[in-house]
Amino acid sequence: MQATMMNVPLSILHFMDRAGTLFQRNTIVSRLPDKSLVTHTYGQWHQRTLQLAAALKAAGLQKGDRVATLCWNHHAHLEAYFGIPAAGGVMHTLNLRLSAEEIGWIAADCKDRFIIVDDVLLPLFRQVLPLHAFEKVIVFPFSGAPVPAEFTDYEAFLAGADAASFKTEPHDENDPIAICYTSGTTGRPKGVAYSHRSTVLHTLVGSLGDHWGLKGTDVVMPVTPMFHANSWGMPYGAVMVGAKLVFPGPHLHPDDLLDLMQLHPPTLSLGVPTIWMSLIQIFDRAQTETPGRWKLPAGMRSLVGGAAVPESLIRAFDKHGIWIMQGWGMTETSPIATISYPRAELAGASADERYRRAAMAGTVAPLVELRLKTDEGTIAPWDGKTMGEIQVRGPFITGRYHEVPVTEDKFTADGWLRTGDVATQDDLGYVRITDRTKDLIKSGGEWISSVDVENVLMSHPAVAEAAVVAIPDEKWSERPLACVVFKPGQSATPAELNALMLERGFVKWQLPERYEVIAAIPRTSTGKFWKLKLREMFPR
Amino acid sequence: MQATMMNVPLSILHFMDRAGTLFQRNTIVSRLPDKSLVTHTYGQWHQRTLQLAAALKAAGLQKGDRVATLCWNHHAHLEAYFGIPAAGGVMHTLNLRLSAEEIGWIAADCKDRFIIVDDVLLPLFRQVLPLHAFEKVIVFPFSGAPVPAEFTDYEAFLAGADAASFKTEPHDENDPIAICYTSGTTGRPKGVAYSHRSTVLHTLVGSLGDHWGLKGTDVVMPVTPMFHANSWGMPYGAVMVGAKLVFPGPHLHPDDLLDLMQLHPPTLSLGVPTIWMSLIQIFDRAQTETPGRWKLPAGMRSLVGGAAVPESLIRAFDKHGIWIMQGWGMTETSPIATISYPRAELAGASADERYRRAAMAGTVAPLVELRLKTDEGTIAPWDGKTMGEIQVRGPFITGRYHEVPVTEDKFTADGWLRTGDVATQDDLGYVRITDRTKDLIKSGGEWISSVDVENVLMSHPAVAEAAVVAIPDEKWSERPLACVVFKPGQSATPAELNALMLERGFVKWQLPERYEVIAAIPRTSTGKFWKLKLREMFPR
Repeated sequence: MQATMMNVPLSILHFMDRAGTLFQRNTIVSRLPDKSLVTHTYGQWHQRTLQLAAALKAAGLQKGDRVATLCWNHHAHLEAYFGIPAAGGVMHTLNLRLSAEEIGWIAADCKDRFIIVDDVLLPLFRQVLPLHAFEKVIVFPFSGAPVPAEFTDYEAFLAGADAASFKTEPHDENDPIAICYTSGTTGRPKGVAYSHRSTVLHTLVGSLGDHWGLKGTDVVMPVTPMFHANSWGMPYGAVMVGAKLVFPGPHLHPDDLLDLMQLHPPTLSLGVPTIWMSLIQIFDRAQTETPGRWKLPAGMRSLVGGAAVPESLIRAFDKHGIWIMQGWGMTETSPIATISYPRAELAGASADERYRRAAMAGTVAPLVELRLKTDEGTIAPWDGKTMGEIQVRGPFITGRYHEVPVTEDKFTADGWLRTGDVATQDDLGYVRITDRTKDLIKSGGEWISSVDVENVLMSHPAVAEAAVVAIPDEKWSERPLACVVFKPGQSATPAELNALMLERGFVKWQLPERYEVIAAIPRTSTGKFWKLKLREMFPR
Repeated sequence: MQATMMNVPLSILHFMDRAGTLFQRNTIVSRLPDKSLVTHTYGQWHQRTLQLAAALKAAGLQKGDRVATLCWNHHAHLEAYFGIPAAGGVMHTLNLRLSAEEIGWIAADCKDRFIIVDDVLLPLFRQVLPLHAFEKVIVFPFSGAPVPAEFTDYEAFLAGADAASFKTEPHDENDPIAICYTSGTTGRPKGVAYSHRSTVLHTLVGSLGDHWGLKGTDVVMPVTPMFHANSWGMPYGAVMVGAKLVFPGPHLHPDDLLDLMQLHPPTLSLGVPTIWMSLIQIFDRAQTETPGRWKLPAGMRSLVGGAAVPESLIRAFDKHGIWIMQGWGMTETSPIATISYPRAELAGASADERYRRAAMAGTVAPLVELRLKTDEGTIAPWDGKTMGEIQVRGPFITGRYHEVPVTEDKFTADGWLRTGDVATQDDLGYVRITDRTKDLIKSGGEWISSVDVENVLMSHPAVAEAAVVAIPDEKWSERPLACVVFKPGQSATPAELNALMLERGFVKWQLPERYEVIAAIPRTSTGKFWKLKLREMFPR
């Protein structure tokens, strides 16, 4: 027998039309370069998105063509999220933190036809321009200044479009809607192309009560860039439920975020740990120096990911009534693969236990399968000790890279993605990331997790940040080197830091071989500790 | 270009394995016929479910074969929900409130091969037995009594299975997993067959924050029968997130539900309005007669659907800190099509306005498209006045009935389901059901909504329930007749009821032509007002 259900393809354009009708009065706030705010209703956004789609088609966009974006987080970027696929195109979000050379290489590799650029990013873009021949450069007048005559003005482009007679391009649920290149910590960046289907499924899973818990009454502030794994997919979720969006534009300094939070207090925010570490330091200092300047939005949920979240950060925010939820994933996983949320089994657990679990990567999301493959090729048991490489599988997990042959170092023969992250899994299935495969330190034949050492060091009251890398050692093959950033006016001796490590259960051979005090930890374009750079700074 | 996402089919068996591993310690509580409780962990349930699947395959079940259930809500029924599809079969939930004749006809129409029956339902089932030749009758010893020798004992069936070597049947996401027959208020009952895909999508949409808001820490009490549109899909959701389930078994009397709520206070419950109307009456009476006997679980969300929910019911529960969420749908819509939840636009609205909206069917769920088709064939504007038939479309909406030709009275030429319900839609997109197409009263060429009249009558303090039907009238063609049930020891005169109607904005010609005081409103097997029966009782 057969099921009797309708064969209706999944489509993000359904979310677009839904927001444009049901939620037409709800709002999208964007912060402009001059720090003033502009507000659009979802109704206006819907109309503008259809105009963008109509204009792109009129300009000759064909099904499957790539339209790049080089933009901050704002309403026009959200128009591109839906307007490009509505025209049958594929949105290619370029990472504005990369060098012009990298951006040019990626645009050429992806064969981008058109591009939408923020006017404030033109200085960077003009360096990209010689490296790839975009057929049409559409400049969004984000600053309000006139658009240089050699480019197409985004607003004029929209104004000239016939949205009324526009029809969205027919599509299948497996058609691509967006492509994002991995940050490429190893080798060349590679493209991951999301489909209508993968995006709708990821949106539904991400929005669940134990994850984002997204509601129409939420006020969402995406600090995570919209060019970084689609701001973790949140824009699609906000549009699906019609939640108010507050885009910070180019102003990501903690002072600016705190200012914005006073005007539009978010109930849900998302960003990498770095942002929140700096924010809480600045907020705490302000409480004594300029009391009353800011209030933190109590009750806010804050999604933090992209790098390990230290337990100390979770505790620091919890004091202010803000619960930090850690997620783990990557561009290849759309990106949600695991989230750490309060499980029923922990109902009677102590606060310490809750914090300890919250500082883990969490448990695997519905629709995703996860396993830890040990060096011996076995599946690691759920014992909280055995380490293995995380491998995942599911309908919003990448099965290959854009125009790159499938290789065994990235995908297993039985069809799982090899993530390159090493983890353990405990008796409740909580995943704890111990390291990137290449960041593990092998000392005297035993593994030391750089992440574990970093977390203890960062729990010391004087330490702002700490990153641990391997340095070569003749006797032990590798030994840990700890790079430490102290809070202003504070410090600790190596002996004090070692004492803390021993107190937390580390043994002598696991202690850092050496400490280096530095002014700041170098970071990748996506805000992660840039360990490659540290290894260059301290080759031995 | 193509997307690079993995091609992994959606499957409810993923939820089954997820619950059996991640949530293995969480629990499923079932109330037995003698009112004692039995608790299984999800780990035990998973093992038993795989045993059921292995036993079914060993008994010769082939891909696509139907296995019927004739069961109350309990753990073994939940085993059937997943164990039958794991074996490649299709679960066919039979409605134990129907007559033996109807059950037999439905089982024969569906060609059920096997059946799982509660032992306490054997008196009913023995009347069904001559009407359809089941190849194997598996009796669940729900009461603990020995199973009659002529049937297969469910527990022995499981115990004899080799679950260790069992492998779930390979399947496609469009394969059927369950079939449910419509209650057939018009014509013969017809089968609606759900697929892995439709069920996974419905589960994700139903679980969203604005709908069930389902979390792993929830305690879910499904009062809605598991044979009625799969208990609105909730069992799949609970298994997906590992929520504790509390099944009331055969004890659905308000006294019994209140007793159960004392032992396992639910955070989420679901049932038809009738259940909650009786429950609140009995609870309120007990507060004076036997104070302290029961506490209502404050903070509980209660999903109510299957019939219109009067505003008075929502107000009555809100006083106790219980928020009633109304949903609308039908077997053909899996069943969630609309849900009334607090929208962002109503943030500043008065309590009266919130109650008014809560008493509507709500707004359309993601992935579902909804339109109101007027008698003139136009789409009704969102003016809160223009009535039209609700038509819906989406990946968990029925596109045809099992082995029944597609006809224009059920499906439009452009592929939408005609629901037969008549509604208006207001400026925020809230759907308000005015009637079933066949329950509208046409008086002097103007429509009167029986639901509107009922809601006002039920808001009178003396009225327990009210149902309005059309009676033929020579002059006006049809006129409304109101059948009223008064609360014990209370009453009101027709003049008083008419005065209330006028006070609420009704005009004279819309008032009931006549009032009939009756002891109880007759109900269908699913708890809806049985208007056909009322029309038989009062032909003129």
